[in-house]
Amino acid sequence: MTKVVVIGAGNVAQHLIVAFKESNQIELVQVVARDVTKLSHLLNSSLLTSSFSEIKKADVYVLAVNDTAIEAVSKQLPFSNQLVVHTSGSVAMTDLDSNNRKGVFYPLQTFSKTKAVNFKEIPICLEAENEADYKTLEALAKSCSDVVYSVSSTQRKALHVAAVFVSNFVNHLYAIGNEICQENQLDFDILKPLITETANKVQLLSPTAAQTGPAKRNDTTTINSHLTFLKDHNQKEIYKLLTKSIIDHEKKL
Amino acid sequence: MTKVVVIGAGNVAQHLIVAFKESNQIELVQVVARDVTKLSHLLNSSLLTSSFSEIKKADVYVLAVNDTAIEAVSKQLPFSNQLVVHTSGSVAMTDLDSNNRKGVFYPLQTFSKTKAVNFKEIPICLEAENEADYKTLEALAKSCSDVVYSVSSTQRKALHVAAVFVSNFVNHLYAIGNEICQENQLDFDILKPLITETANKVQLLSPTAAQTGPAKRNDTTTINSHLTFLKDHNQKEIYKLLTKSIIDHEKKL
Repeated sequence: MTKVVVIGAGNVAQHLIVAFKESNQIELVQVVARDVTKLSHLLNSSLLTSSFSEIKKADVYVLAVNDTAIEAVSKQLPFSNQLVVHTSGSVAMTDLDSNNRKGVFYPLQTFSKTKAVNFKEIPICLEAENEADYKTLEALAKSCSDVVYSVSSTQRKALHVAAVFVSNFVNHLYAIGNEICQENQLDFDILKPLITETANKVQLLSPTAAQTGPAKRNDTTTINSHLTFLKDHNQKEIYKLLTKSIIDHEKKL
Repeated sequence: MTKVVVIGAGNVAQHLIVAFKESNQIELVQVVARDVTKLSHLLNSSLLTSSFSEIKKADVYVLAVNDTAIEAVSKQLPFSNQLVVHTSGSVAMTDLDSNNRKGVFYPLQTFSKTKAVNFKEIPICLEAENEADYKTLEALAKSCSDVVYSVSSTQRKALHVAAVFVSNFVNHLYAIGNEICQENQLDFDILKPLITETANKVQLLSPTAAQTGPAKRNDTTTINSHLTFLKDHNQKEIYKLLTKSIIDHEKKL
C-alpha cells in the first residue's frame, strides 16, 4: 500500500485523485489545495486541507500544480528528505527544492474537466534520483496504469514537444477543418469518422506508411486547386508549409 | 435491388467492392479493370472484365479510378443516358462526359489496402443532376452506409480541403512526433493513447473547447523552451506557425 498526498486542485490533480482513489494498492492520505471547495465533489472534507502545516505523512508527495508554481510550492513543504514528485512534462526534475528527494510522475495525456479518461491506458513517465525511489514510484504508477515508462528529463522534454505536435497542433487542425466546414454550411460531423480512422491507423501502421493525400502523391494539380480554394491567409500558410513538409519527407524515404 | 458496375481496381474500388458485396440490397453485376488479376482475391472471374465492350447493364456505373483518369474513362463508356458517378473528393461532377447522366458517390474516408474499415460508419457524400438519380444514389449509399449526405460540388471541394487538414496533415504531425521520439530513443507507442484521446475528444467537444497546451495558454516560457529544444528547421517552422495560429484563434474567441 503506497501512501500518497496530492498537492493541487486543477485538472491533472483531479484526474490523479480519481485514479488513486480507485486503486486498492494506493492510500490517498490527504489532498492539499488552496481552495478546498474545488475538490468537495471528489473527497470527504476530512481528507482535505489548505494548510501545509497540517500536512500528513506519506510515501510520496505529488505536486500536481501549474508548471510555474512547482519550484515555489516545493520550497514551502514543511519537511525534508521525503519523496516529492511533480507531474509536468516540461519542468526539469531538478527544479524541485533540494530539501527533499526528487522525482517525476508525468501522466502523458490530454485532460479535460468535462471528459473522463481511462487512467489504466495512460502512459506514466517516471524519473527519480535513486533506484529505491524509482521502485516506489513504479509501484504507485503500476497501481493505476498499465503503461509505465522510465523517462529521463531530456527525454521527457522531447516527449512533451512531440505531444504538442500530435495533440495540441492536431486539435488545432481539427479546428481549421471545423472552420472550413462552417464557411461552407457543412456539418463538422461528416469529418468525425475520418478523424477517428486517421488516429486508429497509426496505432497499427507507422505514420509514414499511413500517409495519404495529394502532398504524398506530389499531386500539384490538386494542391494548387486547394490553394486557390482557400481564401484565409492563415489556412493557406499552414496548407503550404505542411504540404512542403510532407513532400520533403517523402523525398527522404 | 440496385445493380452496380464498378470500374477500377485501386484502393477505393476494392473497399467499395467489399461493401457492395456485403449488402443484400446491392447486386454487384460486374467490375471492369485494366488488370483484373488485382481483383482475383475479391471476385470470381465471371464478374471481371478488362474490356468496355463486354460491359453489362446496371442502374449505376461507379468510376473508382484516379482523379486524372475520370474524364477520359467516362468518355470511353460504350453507352449513353446511363447514371455514371465518380468517387472523388476533388473532381467536379461536370468533368464526367455528357453522354451519360452524371453523379458523385464520394466516401469520405482514408483507405489503406492493409487496414479494413467499417464501411457502415463512412459518410457518403452524394450529388446528382436530378432528383430521380439522387434517389437511386441515396438507396445505393444507404445500403452500405449509415451516414449519407447531400453535398454540392463546391461543398465537396471544401470537404476535401478540410479532410486534408484533419487527416493528411494530422498524420504528418504524427510523423513528426515519431521523428522526435526516434531522435530521443523514445518508443512512439508512448504517444498512441494521447493520439487516440485527442481524436476521441472532438467527437464530443468542439475543437475549440478541446484545445489545450502552451499555445492556448499563451505560455511563452514553455513555447520558447520548446523552440530552443527543436533543432530541425522544418519542425521549428511548423511549431512556430501552428503556435501563432492557435494564439490568434484564441484571441478571436
